[in-house]
Amino acid sequence: MIDKKYGLTLKKLRIEKGLSQEELAARVGLHRTYISQLERGLKSPSLRTIEKICGELCISLTTFMVHLEKDE
Amino acid sequence: MIDKKYGLTLKKLRIEKGLSQEELAARVGLHRTYISQLERGLKSPSLRTIEKICGELCISLTTFMVHLEKDE
Repeated sequence: MIDKKYGLTLKKLRIEKGLSQEELAARVGLHRTYISQLERGLKSPSLRTIEKICGELCISLTTFMVHLEKDE
Repeated sequence: MIDKKYGLTLKKLRIEKGLSQEELAARVGLHRTYISQLERGLKSPSLRTIEKICGELCISLTTFMVHLEKDE
C-alpha cells in the first residue's frame, strides 16, 4: 500500500520534471526496470534509494512525503 | 549518511515516546537487534519499515522527515 503510494508519487514528480524512466534511472544509477517496478508499487525502496531519487528530482525528503501523504 | 540521520532521528523520537528498543521492536514485529542496527545507521530501512515504525511512533512520514532533515 505504502509502496503503491510511493510509486504514484514518484511517477507524478518524475513526469513533472520532464524525465523519462530511462533518464531518471541513468541519473540515479539504477536500472530502468527497477524504476518501473517502483512506480508500480512492486518494490519497497530503501531509504538510500528514496534519497537518491529525491536528489535527482531536486526535492527534499519532506516535500516528497508531503506529496505522498497528500495523495492518499 | 542518510541512514545515520535516520538512526539518530529514530532514536530521538523513540526515547521521546518513552519506548525501549525492545518495546518498539515488539510493536512493529521486528527484532530488537534490527532496531539497534537502524539506530546506529548500519541498515537502510525499506519504505515499508519506515512507515511501520512511524505508525508506532504516532507520527506521519512527513513529520518524521522534517525531524530528520532539521537535524542535519
